[in-house]
This record gives sequence, C-alpha cells and structure tokens, in this order.
Amino acid sequence: MNPDPDYSAAYVVLRTDDGHEGHGFAFTIGRGNDVQTAAIAALEPYVIGRDAEDLGTLYKEMVNDSQLRWLGPEKGVMHMAISAVVNALWDLRAKRYGRPLWLLLAEMSPEEIVDLVDFRYLSDALTPDEALAMLRAAEPGRRERVARLREQGYPAYTTSPGWLGYDDDKLRRLCKEALDQGFKQIKLKVGADLQDDIRRFTTAREVCGPDFPIAIDANQRWDVASAIEWVNALRRFGPHWVEEPTSPDDVLGHAAIAEGVRPVPVATGEHVQNRIVFKQLLQAGAISYLQLDSARVGGVNENIAILLLAAKFGVPVCPHAGGVGLCELVQHLAMFDYVAVSGSLEGRVIEYVDHLHEHFLDPVVIENGNYVAPSLPGFSAQMRPESIAAHAYPGGDVWRDQ
Amino acid sequence: MNPDPDYSAAYVVLRTDDGHEGHGFAFTIGRGNDVQTAAIAALEPYVIGRDAEDLGTLYKEMVNDSQLRWLGPEKGVMHMAISAVVNALWDLRAKRYGRPLWLLLAEMSPEEIVDLVDFRYLSDALTPDEALAMLRAAEPGRRERVARLREQGYPAYTTSPGWLGYDDDKLRRLCKEALDQGFKQIKLKVGADLQDDIRRFTTAREVCGPDFPIAIDANQRWDVASAIEWVNALRRFGPHWVEEPTSPDDVLGHAAIAEGVRPVPVATGEHVQNRIVFKQLLQAGAISYLQLDSARVGGVNENIAILLLAAKFGVPVCPHAGGVGLCELVQHLAMFDYVAVSGSLEGRVIEYVDHLHEHFLDPVVIENGNYVAPSLPGFSAQMRPESIAAHAYPGGDVWRDQ
Repeated sequence: MNPDPDYSAAYVVLRTDDGHEGHGFAFTIGRGNDVQTAAIAALEPYVIGRDAEDLGTLYKEMVNDSQLRWLGPEKGVMHMAISAVVNALWDLRAKRYGRPLWLLLAEMSPEEIVDLVDFRYLSDALTPDEALAMLRAAEPGRRERVARLREQGYPAYTTSPGWLGYDDDKLRRLCKEALDQGFKQIKLKVGADLQDDIRRFTTAREVCGPDFPIAIDANQRWDVASAIEWVNALRRFGPHWVEEPTSPDDVLGHAAIAEGVRPVPVATGEHVQNRIVFKQLLQAGAISYLQLDSARVGGVNENIAILLLAAKFGVPVCPHAGGVGLCELVQHLAMFDYVAVSGSLEGRVIEYVDHLHEHFLDPVVIENGNYVAPSLPGFSAQMRPESIAAHAYPGGDVWRDQ
Repeated sequence: MNPDPDYSAAYVVLRTDDGHEGHGFAFTIGRGNDVQTAAIAALEPYVIGRDAEDLGTLYKEMVNDSQLRWLGPEKGVMHMAISAVVNALWDLRAKRYGRPLWLLLAEMSPEEIVDLVDFRYLSDALTPDEALAMLRAAEPGRRERVARLREQGYPAYTTSPGWLGYDDDKLRRLCKEALDQGFKQIKLKVGADLQDDIRRFTTAREVCGPDFPIAIDANQRWDVASAIEWVNALRRFGPHWVEEPTSPDDVLGHAAIAEGVRPVPVATGEHVQNRIVFKQLLQAGAISYLQLDSARVGGVNENIAILLLAAKFGVPVCPHAGGVGLCELVQHLAMFDYVAVSGSLEGRVIEYVDHLHEHFLDPVVIENGNYVAPSLPGFSAQMRPESIAAHAYPGGDVWRDQ
C-alpha cells in the first residue's frame, strides 16, 4: 500500500519569552507535506502570543474552532496539524518543567489528567468520573512502575525481518538478529501474494520457534471477505495479531473480520483518525490490540483519551512507530500508560524501526529489546539543528541536486 | 456548532486545448480555505497535461496516490480537494458533451457507470455485479423519468424557518411562506435549548398542520444519551427526521440513537467522510435518510458509489445543500439517482437554501417547491467572472476595506 514512501515532516517550533522551545511535527511520506505546512500555519492564532500553561484549553480550542472543524471534523490534514502543534506544546512544557514527558504526565494528578481530555462523543463508553476512578485506582503503584521503567525499560518489537521481497536467507538472518537483540516479537508484512506469505511465515517460525510472537500486517489491503480468507490460510502459523486487515474507517468490517478469523486477534490504529473511531472499535469488540500513533490524532491530549478508553475496555495498547520520530514520541505515551493508566505491561510492546534516529537530539535507545526510559527533559521530539538545516525544503543541502 | 461561518471556497478551473473549461470548488466556512488551496495544488500532477476522458481512472489515481493517502486516507482536507478536482473534470466533460451533468450521467450505460466506482472496501455490502444488476433493472424507465423531471422538477425542502433565535412571529411568517412557495418539508435547528425547541416546534406545527413534514437538525451537538433524551422530548411533534444527532464518525452511536428514538427516523451525511462510513451506517440500520454532500466525499464518482449503496439498502437519499454552490451541484446527483439508480422520488427531497445563487452562471431555479431540472451544459458549478474577480483573495474588491 505504501510502495514509494519519501519520509518527510512538516516541522513546528514554538518559542516562548523565557527562552524555551517546543518542537513537534506532522509525519508524512512525501507529497502533501506542504499541505500539512499550510494546515499548521492556520493554527498560528491559537499559539502566537498565548500562554502555554493550560494545555487542556488550548487543545480544545483548536479542535473546536468552528470554521476549521468544517475541514474535518477531527480527521485528516487538519487533525494531524493540531497533533503537531499540541505535541510541540507538550515538548515545551516538559522542557520547562525539566522532565521527560512520560514522567511529567505520570506525575500529574488524576484530576489534572482528566481535564486534558475532550470527552465529547465518548460518554456512551467513558465518562470523566469513570476516567477519574481508573486513574485513582492506578495511583498507588506509580512510584514502583517508574522505578521499573528506569531499570528495565519498555518491551519492544521489530518489523525489520518483515518486509516483502526478502529471500529466505535474508529473512532467516534478520529473524535471528531480532532474537539475538532481545526483541519480544517480530512482524511480517502480508497480503501481496499468499504463497510468498506462507513461505516467509514458515521460515520465520523455523527460526523463531513455535511460541515466539509473530504478528502479520496487511496495511489495509483487503476487503472483509478476502481478509478472512487470507488470514485463515495463515492461521496454522499462529499469528500473534493481524494488523490493518482493511480500511481504518471500517469498524463493522474489523468486527466481522475479528469474528471470521477467531482466535487470531485483530489490531489496528496507525491510521485511525480519532478517539471516536477507537471508541467504536472497542465497543464492537473489533480489536484485541490498539495501535495508537503519536502524530495522527490530536496529539498528547487525544492520545490520553484513547489510553483511557483502551484501559476501560481492557485492551492492551501496542503503539505504532517508525517513520520520522514516531518511536521517539510514542515511547512517552506507552510509558505514561504503564505508570498511570493501565498499570500493566501484559501483552504490551512498542513497535521499533531502526531508521532516522540519528536526526534527533534525544534519540530512542533500545537495550535488550526494550525501549530505555528517556531521561532528558521534553518529548524527544527535537531534531538536530544540522539535520533540520540540511533537509529544509527547498533550501537545504539534500535538495540541491534534485 | 457553526456560530460564525464566513462562506468561502477554494476554486478550481481546468482548461483544455479545445477551449473548454471545467469549474469546481471545495466549500469551506472561512478559515482553512488556504489549506484547501494547498491540497488542490498537490493534485495538479494528476490533471495537468492529462487526457480528461477517462474519469474513472483519473479519480482512482487521485484517491490511491500512495503518498497523499497518508494524509487521510479518503477523508478531510485531501478528500475535499479531490472532490473539487473531480467535480471540475465532470463539469468539463458535461460541457464538452453539451449536456447538463445529470443527463450526461443518466445516459451512460450501466457498465460505464460501474466503471466510475471504486468498490474497494465495499464488497461486503455491494459488489460490481450487484451494482450492474441494479442499474440494468432501472434502465427501462429512464426516458419517462427524464421527461418527468423536465416537466415537474425534483421536490425540495427549505431550512429558512428553522434557524435558532427567531421569535414566534418571524417563525410563523417563514413557515407560512414555505407552505405558500410549495416546499415539501421544512427543517428546524435544535439542540441549544429544549424549551425553545418545544416553543418553535409547537408554533411550526400550528402553522404547517399535523401532517406536514418537519425535520429537526442538531448539527452534531449531542452525545448518544443526550440525543435520545432530547429527541424523545420532541417526539410528540412528529419529527420527520432527526439530522446529525451526534458525531458524523459515530456509526454505532447513530445506531444506538436510531434504536432509542424509534420511530423518529435518523438522518446524516453532510459531514460523513466517505463511502466506507456510509456503508456502515447502512449496514447498521443507523439511518433512514442518507444526506450526501456534493463537495465533501471524492466528487461525482464516490457519490455514485453512495447512491448505489443507498439503493441497495432501500434508503432514500435526501441531499445536503446550502453553503456556496452546493444546491447547484447536488441537484444533478439527485436527478441522476432518480433517472438511473433508485428510479424513485418516494420520500426524497433536496435541501434548498436561498443564498448566494446570484454568483453562479447557471443558478438553481425553484418552482412551486421543486428544483427545475438544469438544461445548460455542465455541472452548474461555474461562478460568474465578476463574482470571482470581486471575491478572489486577497486582491478582490470585497477584501479591499478589510
């Protein structure tokens, strides 16, 4: 589905009078980056000259701009732009408070956390009072979980062996490396050719053994019936989950697929537009793993709503990552979830892709297949000045010969 | 929900070597118009220098651009931009063939019509073969229905009495005018204050009588429980439908509301992002009226898919209109539906708002509460040159003193 990505980002820098900076971005895969830039510019009135303290109010103001809502509401280009700005505000906040974002969030009171969330359209599944009760119930163990994260990190899985087109030798070698590096799970892309999927899954099982979690990812390739047929043809290999079997908009389709491929669990989320669609996926019992993305829905605030919804329905969050900087951001959300929301690592892993981390000032660190808990202040969102200069369009060095 | 609209449009003009022009636009309510402009510019490679004949292929190419899909897929700003370009291509086509669009479409063969549709993600509800069978079944009466449209037009309803804040005298006068003008239905905005809704509905019933269709429209104001409670408080007035009771993304919410307010029918669509969400609303039995919009989903092509889905499920299409030029466009789709898809006017009305038609070269004409079938070639999409010149941002006259 994504044959020719050209990883890009519309990049936001917010500056305050006290000398702090907040960085954020909308990740794109090439064309359309200038559309994101225009959308971010449309949000300038919400941040320029404003106080950056009350991030619940700023977020809700942006989402509820009555004219900009017409372009969504709460989906697509405008919503990704809101995400970039909201995430930059959180990077700024975390730097000012001298905390990595996950810890900043995890030290907030249940009441403060609930105030960050827009509960509109959620009350049939989750009320503010229920959210508050859940957060309070998770308060007692916070300190121990912070300590555990600092000691052991958060479990990760890797997609590196999984790309289409690898021959058996390469697949074997990459599976072996994933095991050696301590990753908790791998993932295979599927859906182009069933015989090739069978060959690769056979090889991966040979290397990883019968019990190691191996997920499959279809990147929205199928309609409902073909998803059920294809996944059932791979069922004997014990897929840990099937990811994005169909359109991210198709709640009922995911529910029908979940029913049709049982006991294979269904996962989705990287393209799910907002908390309202996640709510329905959970209500319909359509997903067994929820794969939130740090830069598609309305930033940290909406992702807190999604973490609360997942916890309410008892569905583990296994975040999507990759792209540019998505690993850097999403680790903070997963760690906050562990400390203050779900309180659990059970069935939970963060995706890891070993790509483009060299451009970030505070890149993710993987040790023994775990994300090491970030310790520097901020959201790990800031790119290195020399990377920004080289890749800025159209003046940067990398564009000179194009 | 839309307290301060400033009706705007990102306007597209396509020109061919043979001297024809196609016009289209993305309607906005103010801020964000420049975001739409950037999104339309991102689609230039799909039209500049291309042959404008195969509109099935051009549409599918735009929707399936793998990089631009990342910004959706098929929703929000990018999808509205595709709509503007696709609709401009259809305006061009209809002018070249010397036909009003509704007639051009209605003269196409079932096979040609099916080729225009992207059936991806629809096959669990509608296959190409089923669509073909439906279109073939509707072929016999096409000529009679064309004649009937030319003689009698297509029934319309008006929202003019329905805005919040009118006192009883004004509401009474506008209801009376709507009846005198022959409109088949009126619509009241609701959801701000229940006592005020009761007062206005009481007055409207007094003027219009017990059986005249009076719909209510909440513009997405409610969560599920409050929608059910509010609508049931108005049930004794016999609402013809309740429109947009909650988020347009909430299929399960609409289904729960439909269940909770039965027998009051539920309607939605002006903000529904694409055919995949419409498919689910129909599968879930969540809507009794489908209100497609001409300029939000992927243009004429995707609206044909939506008309076919509605016909398959036996749900009448009562299009959304208003804004800038939405009446002009959508009448063509409803008339095509009548001639070649559903073959029926039963339970069907097109919304009418008496606003801004003076800017169009081929404005809608209402006679005795019916849309008169357009006879000029094209999609009625072209604005008057002097209107474009005066409103062009930032150089136009109307911006001079702002």
